[in-house]
Amino acid sequence: MRLGRWFRVQSIGTVRREGVEPNPSEFYDPWIETVIEIDERWVAGLDGIEGFSHLVVLFYLDRAQRRRAAGIPRAAEARPGAERIGFFATRTPKRPNPIGIACPRLLRRDGNRLIVTGIDAWPGTPVLDVKGYFPRDELRPDATVPAWLANLNAHHDAERGTPLS
Amino acid sequence: MRLGRWFRVQSIGTVRREGVEPNPSEFYDPWIETVIEIDERWVAGLDGIEGFSHLVVLFYLDRAQRRRAAGIPRAAEARPGAERIGFFATRTPKRPNPIGIACPRLLRRDGNRLIVTGIDAWPGTPVLDVKGYFPRDELRPDATVPAWLANLNAHHDAERGTPLS
Repeated sequence: MRLGRWFRVQSIGTVRREGVEPNPSEFYDPWIETVIEIDERWVAGLDGIEGFSHLVVLFYLDRAQRRRAAGIPRAAEARPGAERIGFFATRTPKRPNPIGIACPRLLRRDGNRLIVTGIDAWPGTPVLDVKGYFPRDELRPDATVPAWLANLNAHHDAERGTPLS
Repeated sequence: MRLGRWFRVQSIGTVRREGVEPNPSEFYDPWIETVIEIDERWVAGLDGIEGFSHLVVLFYLDRAQRRRAAGIPRAAEARPGAERIGFFATRTPKRPNPIGIACPRLLRRDGNRLIVTGIDAWPGTPVLDVKGYFPRDELRPDATVPAWLANLNAHHDAERGTPLS
């Protein structure tokens, strides 16, 4: 079996939410204000980022369990109409590399603090990278998703009472 | 000075382009067909990904130089109208963590091979993760960019003769 190559990555900042303690049992609202706090040594790299309305943030899911095997895909009950769904087709944090991505709105910058809304990361999560959201690179207006995902979204919206977007 | 925490990430596949040798001096066309070849041990995780029109691909820029310091931001001549621009506000591969992101169109899946178009990664580049493009997570139709980036894009389009999107 071919083994993967390994690389090292480092945190360059931390996700902060004042007054919010990590608690997986609670409903987590990604739309409340969150701070991406950049370590002092990298702060000069932020200049000009305040000109973007949105960011792309990569973070390391340090409380997720790393996936060790692909597993056997199966139709989950929560995904009506789904054929077999492997983990790559989902957003499960249990991945070979537990790296999360978010494209939050940048509300403002305050020195080394980027105040954003729309990021699904627990307080204390290590941040790996921050970039401006470049529509040419990230915006795919004609993107379509499988029926099972559209169903799942509709189900979640009904449960929560409001659509997320 | 606060030091970052370090984490390990692994390749789960490789970027392939038949007949294309890496050559940084040549114009690189991200729109020619590219193969994301997933290592056999992870292939079962791909089931269902063919239902997405686009992917989010994370890759490790193994030929980029890792950034060791933020540096002094300055207005580059290539960015007319720019104030000081730090590296986070750009797409330079020279970052604290040289991780690239692309949102290519998925043309088809052939076993462990995802045939895509629209990825800016040299052949041989290690792949860290593949996900379906979820419009709720990645599509930000109201995203705006700074004037210097809009100018830069217009400049590149004029030079190449065709807009990239």
